Amino acid sequence: MWTIENDSIESISIGAGILGSGGGGNPYMGMLRAKEMIRKYGPVNVLSVNELSISDKIVCVGSIGAPTVGIEKIQGIESYYALRAIEKLLNFSATAVVSNEIGGSNSLEPIIPASISKIPIVDADGMGRAFPELQMKTFFVYGVPPVPMSIADDKGNVMIISQANDPKTVEDMARSITVQMGSVACYAFGPMDINQILNTAVLNTLTLSKNLGDIVRSSIKTNNNPIESILKVHSGKNLFEGKIVDLERKTIQGFTRGKVLIEGLSEYSGDRMEIEFQNENLIAKMNNTVVCLVPDLICIVDSEKGEPITTELLRYGFRVTVLGFPAPKHWTSEQGLKVVGPKAFGYDFDYSPLLFKELK
Amino acid sequence: MWTIENDSIESISIGAGILGSGGGGNPYMGMLRAKEMIRKYGPVNVLSVNELSISDKIVCVGSIGAPTVGIEKIQGIESYYALRAIEKLLNFSATAVVSNEIGGSNSLEPIIPASISKIPIVDADGMGRAFPELQMKTFFVYGVPPVPMSIADDKGNVMIISQANDPKTVEDMARSITVQMGSVACYAFGPMDINQILNTAVLNTLTLSKNLGDIVRSSIKTNNNPIESILKVHSGKNLFEGKIVDLERKTIQGFTRGKVLIEGLSEYSGDRMEIEFQNENLIAKMNNTVVCLVPDLICIVDSEKGEPITTELLRYGFRVTVLGFPAPKHWTSEQGLKVVGPKAFGYDFDYSPLLFKELK
Repeated sequence: MWTIENDSIESISIGAGILGSGGGGNPYMGMLRAKEMIRKYGPVNVLSVNELSISDKIVCVGSIGAPTVGIEKIQGIESYYALRAIEKLLNFSATAVVSNEIGGSNSLEPIIPASISKIPIVDADGMGRAFPELQMKTFFVYGVPPVPMSIADDKGNVMIISQANDPKTVEDMARSITVQMGSVACYAFGPMDINQILNTAVLNTLTLSKNLGDIVRSSIKTNNNPIESILKVHSGKNLFEGKIVDLERKTIQGFTRGKVLIEGLSEYSGDRMEIEFQNENLIAKMNNTVVCLVPDLICIVDSEKGEPITTELLRYGFRVTVLGFPAPKHWTSEQGLKVVGPKAFGYDFDYSPLLFKELK
Repeated sequence: MWTIENDSIESISIGAGILGSGGGGNPYMGMLRAKEMIRKYGPVNVLSVNELSISDKIVCVGSIGAPTVGIEKIQGIESYYALRAIEKLLNFSATAVVSNEIGGSNSLEPIIPASISKIPIVDADGMGRAFPELQMKTFFVYGVPPVPMSIADDKGNVMIISQANDPKTVEDMARSITVQMGSVACYAFGPMDINQILNTAVLNTLTLSKNLGDIVRSSIKTNNNPIESILKVHSGKNLFEGKIVDLERKTIQGFTRGKVLIEGLSEYSGDRMEIEFQNENLIAKMNNTVVCLVPDLICIVDSEKGEPITTELLRYGFRVTVLGFPAPKHWTSEQGLKVVGPKAFGYDFDYSPLLFKELK
């Protein structure tokens, strides 16, 4: 067990911003909200899965919407409303919450209901990164039912998806409600028990994101290269370094979609990398050759500070480094690739762990 | 008590088509569905409100969506799914259902859950006509809570609006879900008790629509003027007679919107009437002067047969008669006009029971 306080919130927001692969919601906004919660309601404990008991009832909470809206619309305690709605509907009290994804502000979302309800957060999540759509959760791929799912807005309006034929239908229904609610909302589903967490979640990701953030922050203080530090904590690869020279980004149908073009610097001088995204970075092409693709992680960080740059914050002129990390094993199975492989995002080729072969 | 069988379904579909003021869903499609249900599950009883007991639990069901889609998309037993979801959520068994509006196919919608569940229908509704939006129900205006409300599609997908700050928010959330579900869905809310029905519903409207349909059908058989017959059964006024010469109609945001232009015939020769609609007819202008406006009923019927022509069925060349009926008193109160008066539909003038003064 460890405790989330102001300092760890800063680290998690950096680490989860990196693991978010460009998505998961703006880490800075998530950090501010989480800090305010802890100031108001006290710090929150993190339990590793082996500290859970058989009687624990764990509810997954998360935020849904377009990150471009998330940095503009003031969020409240939507995720607490969503948790309460599920508890009331099914007549139980949650003993812990778990994050739906370890990316960006979504990694910190459970702090809100956890601090208000005074329950711990489980050190795990349902993606091991961030993904844009609701059905893209290891929970659902490995058998946790997605309904009933509650969806709440900041005014306390709540909808419940009580029957749905499959997780993609849940996504479709939740997305249209989210657009109606102003393109940002929070949801909750569960409860799950310890076995469901063990069998479906990506474990220890809150600790991983904290460690990543810690090393980035200490690198800056000690004048060490933050990129190298990141790759020491989490096995991955430096894919590219350059300057953003072109950017297309739209907020459509509740998503942030677009692509960014990076012109190479130093060892990549003369090369170009293009990255396409739907909330998260999906595919990276160097000089028109695919070098990394979903579900592997494509993370854009500030070249100097190592801090993550999520898709809604990309801007012309930024000097960035592109890092690649292998996807959690949950996603590279046949079942996993069906939901988050390149074809699930409309690309006409199969997944291949291209640049990670040497890492394995 | 009386029983709905094949013959009464035909009459109700005509009468409710007239009372629907152009909306409420296509009466013919509603008739086919209702007949099929009764063939499969047996006839359904209609109870007047004074045949209810204090222990009755009455659920309101209805269809939501764009009528233009309703005539194309095959509907199933959505309203039964919606009823079951509310019963399951609140752990009770409905003893009766009631229609949300007496317009068009929506007047027959309760037959589906009633015949499957073998419970009666209450002779009443929540509008006394048809209106395009969910908050426009006498139930809600006079205090019945609109949540929890279930919304189901033909595949059995179900959403529940469990918390909403006001009935208009329920409409907004339900509408966006409906568009997601293919622009047609069914909903249920309740249960209401006998006092809630007495204090909020428009009573005896199923009987009224049956009587209207009966007289239209017998007029055709006996070569009587159906327009005069209609006005004998229900006090109203013959506003205009002519030929449809222009029509604008779009399906947008889950509604059928547009306007129709009618060129006068016989005593109206040389005059023109323009009628604007949002699912239902909202305002009728003769030679640019308003002669009837919402919440009063503006009903377009076939001049020869007296059969209703709903907004999705209007077509160039039709010979039509426009009838006006005064709105139920529920709607002409201050509370009522706030929700369904001309300003609620974006018109910049106050309600005035223009042509009905002499009828009162």
